[in-house]
Amino acid sequence: MIETLYFDGDDVVILNQAELPERISYERCTTVEQVADAISSLKVRGAPLIGVTAAFGLAMAVGRFSGEKPELPGYFEHHLQLLAGTRPTAVNLFWALERMRVVFQGCLTLTPREIARELRSKAQAMFVEDVRANNRMGDYGQELLEADSRVMTICNAGALATCGYGTALGVVRAAHKQGKIKKVWACETRPVLQGSRLTVWELTQDRIPVTLITDGMAGYVMQLGQVDAVLVGADRIAANGDVANKIGTYTLATLAHHHGIPFYVVAPFSSVDLERPTGKQIPVEERDHEEVRSVRGVPLTLPGVDVFNPAFDITPAELVTGIITERGVTGPPFPEGLYRLAQRGERHESYQGTQ
Amino acid sequence: MIETLYFDGDDVVILNQAELPERISYERCTTVEQVADAISSLKVRGAPLIGVTAAFGLAMAVGRFSGEKPELPGYFEHHLQLLAGTRPTAVNLFWALERMRVVFQGCLTLTPREIARELRSKAQAMFVEDVRANNRMGDYGQELLEADSRVMTICNAGALATCGYGTALGVVRAAHKQGKIKKVWACETRPVLQGSRLTVWELTQDRIPVTLITDGMAGYVMQLGQVDAVLVGADRIAANGDVANKIGTYTLATLAHHHGIPFYVVAPFSSVDLERPTGKQIPVEERDHEEVRSVRGVPLTLPGVDVFNPAFDITPAELVTGIITERGVTGPPFPEGLYRLAQRGERHESYQGTQ
Repeated sequence: MIETLYFDGDDVVILNQAELPERISYERCTTVEQVADAISSLKVRGAPLIGVTAAFGLAMAVGRFSGEKPELPGYFEHHLQLLAGTRPTAVNLFWALERMRVVFQGCLTLTPREIARELRSKAQAMFVEDVRANNRMGDYGQELLEADSRVMTICNAGALATCGYGTALGVVRAAHKQGKIKKVWACETRPVLQGSRLTVWELTQDRIPVTLITDGMAGYVMQLGQVDAVLVGADRIAANGDVANKIGTYTLATLAHHHGIPFYVVAPFSSVDLERPTGKQIPVEERDHEEVRSVRGVPLTLPGVDVFNPAFDITPAELVTGIITERGVTGPPFPEGLYRLAQRGERHESYQGTQ
Repeated sequence: MIETLYFDGDDVVILNQAELPERISYERCTTVEQVADAISSLKVRGAPLIGVTAAFGLAMAVGRFSGEKPELPGYFEHHLQLLAGTRPTAVNLFWALERMRVVFQGCLTLTPREIARELRSKAQAMFVEDVRANNRMGDYGQELLEADSRVMTICNAGALATCGYGTALGVVRAAHKQGKIKKVWACETRPVLQGSRLTVWELTQDRIPVTLITDGMAGYVMQLGQVDAVLVGADRIAANGDVANKIGTYTLATLAHHHGIPFYVVAPFSSVDLERPTGKQIPVEERDHEEVRSVRGVPLTLPGVDVFNPAFDITPAELVTGIITERGVTGPPFPEGLYRLAQRGERHESYQGTQ
């Protein structure tokens, strides 16, 4: 499976996803500014991958620290904030940076070089943990699908959105291994086309049958009886089960509800934000209007026409059939279900901690 | 307002809508093959305009007839079938050609030249009639909108889709004249982008406020409480009120229903096909897969990926709040409402006939 992110010496190397599917090109980042720009400009995208990439960037920054030790906390915080300012919606970014901060504060007595090593080791652990979490989600999720399933998805919640394997597409992979996938309907996902550019490419690499449609076709395909389940990722899940995900997800959820088709959200537990009671408290990023006015540099409309370009939308919990995480699956009522999974995780982590 | 179609001498001149909004370019058609190609390739599009353009093309063909009189019926039928074979969904095409056939059969005793004149005169009458019908729909439809309405639409059901003024956008125009339009949400309408290319251009020309969104954003905009009504055109309306229209319309109708937003279909009565009991009997055109794989010649995905590209979808009558025609407005139950409007038209036409 393709690598989305790695350390090469002291540098962070990212797969430039803006170039896919035409070119598989990697970019070397030697500064946090370059990492931040890669995230802002969607060269690196997908909530889980954004979080781990930011952690890699922060570890790299501390590895390059050349000042006096007392300056290190300010230096660390400056770069953390720079990374935190890239994208507001995916909570995994803040979750990952917060975990890096905890490590940093826990080893302040060490030398800068030793601290950098600790941070790098934590970042790499988060990478491995993400792949493992995706595999678990795949195992849990595939059990929910029947034989010959026709699954619809939006955006790319795949290996490319994570450190490997994928969330929604991880479930597709696991189900495909069981012979359960008849086909995947990939919504192209305007404006940035993560569906046509990334999901189609990723599934084709794995020889999983995929049919591409425009976003407006989703309802008609469901009406034709051609969809057995909808699987999507998440950028943030509120405590009540409301889900922020790629713009268009709410439309799919409403359509699935209307047709009685199960609608599953697949995300690592790091996407759950128990501090936000509902989706209303999740900030939704609005992006550059040119994304809507053009496609890959080609203008589609009058220059300067008014545009609304929210990158995400909020799907209310009542439209969600189940949330699939590495800690297990929960259906409604979600406040209780997510709380139960939160406790399960704490037990798990404290068990590991005492080993 | 821009001219979409006219006779210049013996030639039919069409506005090439595939070039909008970058270029306002007209193309001269001197053969029925050219007219048919203009319709197939979407240089001319919009159900009402397709019908009248085909009528113009057929009149032109007879005007150029140079054979012996007994050959004329075969010649006429050959060209009629050529035009009828361009696009299967919009019933206005068949309706217009059928009206031309009636005129042709009614004047077979005349010379070919006189017959051509009759046909041309009928085609031009249909043109005028379409503009008049659009104006009436505008008057009827605007009464249904409140002050400060925010209207969502898909595709282009405007002056560009008709001989002038427009169906759904005709209602917008009439309501705007009454100061009732706060803004229009134009869905870009992938794959062919009639929203971003045509509707944005047309409304901007008339200084009607328009905001462009991608198709997947429609649900979120409704959820935000930013839509007071959805107005769409139609390519064919079955006797029970099921509506064939641009792909994505069914998704919008389902979303509007979920949010309690009125969903109006605006179309001339020539779009009503009382011979199709329900939408199930309406043929849905599937178009070239490259329309989905690329945008304006720019590839968006892997070459050769499997695609589904229905150009239309069917919105069931139960999602339709009202159908606005030049004969009046009907709400459900539609079989009765459409039948009543059909009778009203017949009375109207027979009244005109006895003057």
